Amino acid sequence: MDCDGVLWRGKTIIPGVVETLNLLRNMGKRLIFVTNNSTKTRALIQKKIQSFGIQCNQEEIFGSAYAAAVYLKSINFNKHVYVVGEESIASEMKDLGIKYRGVSEHAYIPKSVDEVADSLNPDPEVEAVVCGLDSRVSYPKIAYAHYYLTKNKNCVFLATNTDSYLPVHGKTLPGAGSIVSSLRTSTGREPIVLGKPAITLMELIIKSTGINPSRTCMVGDRLDTDILFGNEGGLKYTLLVLTGVVHEWSQDQTIIPSHIIPSLGDIASFFKAHL
Amino acid sequence: MDCDGVLWRGKTIIPGVVETLNLLRNMGKRLIFVTNNSTKTRALIQKKIQSFGIQCNQEEIFGSAYAAAVYLKSINFNKHVYVVGEESIASEMKDLGIKYRGVSEHAYIPKSVDEVADSLNPDPEVEAVVCGLDSRVSYPKIAYAHYYLTKNKNCVFLATNTDSYLPVHGKTLPGAGSIVSSLRTSTGREPIVLGKPAITLMELIIKSTGINPSRTCMVGDRLDTDILFGNEGGLKYTLLVLTGVVHEWSQDQTIIPSHIIPSLGDIASFFKAHL
Repeated sequence: MDCDGVLWRGKTIIPGVVETLNLLRNMGKRLIFVTNNSTKTRALIQKKIQSFGIQCNQEEIFGSAYAAAVYLKSINFNKHVYVVGEESIASEMKDLGIKYRGVSEHAYIPKSVDEVADSLNPDPEVEAVVCGLDSRVSYPKIAYAHYYLTKNKNCVFLATNTDSYLPVHGKTLPGAGSIVSSLRTSTGREPIVLGKPAITLMELIIKSTGINPSRTCMVGDRLDTDILFGNEGGLKYTLLVLTGVVHEWSQDQTIIPSHIIPSLGDIASFFKAHL
Repeated sequence: MDCDGVLWRGKTIIPGVVETLNLLRNMGKRLIFVTNNSTKTRALIQKKIQSFGIQCNQEEIFGSAYAAAVYLKSINFNKHVYVVGEESIASEMKDLGIKYRGVSEHAYIPKSVDEVADSLNPDPEVEAVVCGLDSRVSYPKIAYAHYYLTKNKNCVFLATNTDSYLPVHGKTLPGAGSIVSSLRTSTGREPIVLGKPAITLMELIIKSTGINPSRTCMVGDRLDTDILFGNEGGLKYTLLVLTGVVHEWSQDQTIIPSHIIPSLGDIASFFKAHL
């Protein structure tokens, strides 16, 4: 299931959600929390989920920073990865024993384009680039990533997600997809995407957790990420809740969930009333 | 005519070019130098052209930073423009009396995404965004530009050019198009482009200089910028020289110049030999 818009909205838990999740656990269902946010490690996401009174352990969480590290591990990557992204990505790489560069390196060093060219000092061990949301993105960082991706056609190119923008404190800011676009344009290369709705993420989750797609339901509040992810990822069910991005269901949608309910909290109320 | 690859290569003038340009001037032909480089003002471009011994005055130069300022002037823009780009753009705006923000503002301030959202302090007078190559591009800069472009659907969106990469000192670096892509992705908006091969630039040059398209030839070394620019811009002739990007002419091209010569310098030699 998705988190923001499904479990909580901003800083407020959605009524009945804690009860619903406890009920599902008591029925023996497994829960997996999937988020495109690459600026938080699994530990931080867990802390946030628990802060709302929701039970959750780290193995149940798939953030896109973690997914990038799991992907590299899955292809037995043993070189260095250059990270255009935040500490969270570095931290997930470190946890899985993957060596990285970038992150706080090459950020905010004021240089002219000529100076950037002259000062490029590439690491010959870098054979992968991961790009996510990065509040300290800089021209030198993009230049390094561009160098690695164009110099070596086999250099792995990962994007944590391609969300074009994201809501923060009532404003919208450029998303990871905005930064990924810079590299896509300058290099002409397409990344492997590790956020919803990318199929690669679903394959990774199925492989890592051993869930059975024919007995799994994706719960989300967005059609173009969550519901598409479940539908195209081959899950048996997709459940749209109307507590987030989609407030009202209209028939003229092209992405169709198998089920729709007003709120995830309704499941607990339903059981309380009928059983 | 284009400059790099046509008049010079790196730091070396192409043989015969100075004589050819002098000859054309003596025949009463007007010369206009058109470059997509937005990191240099007309004054700096003039200095560079003159450093090779080529006669040239500022009115003959169309750099894309200058073109952006001329465009705003042509629509009687009298608000503020937010610049994601270098001092050159600021300088051309200043020269035409256009008020600007950005440039060195909001560069290299290390903030988290949350802090960027909270510290956004938009200027209500901004009603245009210009995006060019910017060695000090930062997440806050992109966030400001994103804000202006999404908050106000009438906010003018200009790109100095959309070159995806550029060669610098034997390396390739991300071009202005790479930075423009970030904003295009995050805002879903398409910019008005003021670099070759954009038709808007041709219209601006014709309007500003009063040249007659049916008596004008575009000289360049690249098919997808220079020659396409002349062809689609409605010029009578396009002349490809083989001293730059295209070294050899092959028949399977889709963009066809009206004339091809090995080097612009050949014109002087031809006249010397035959007249």
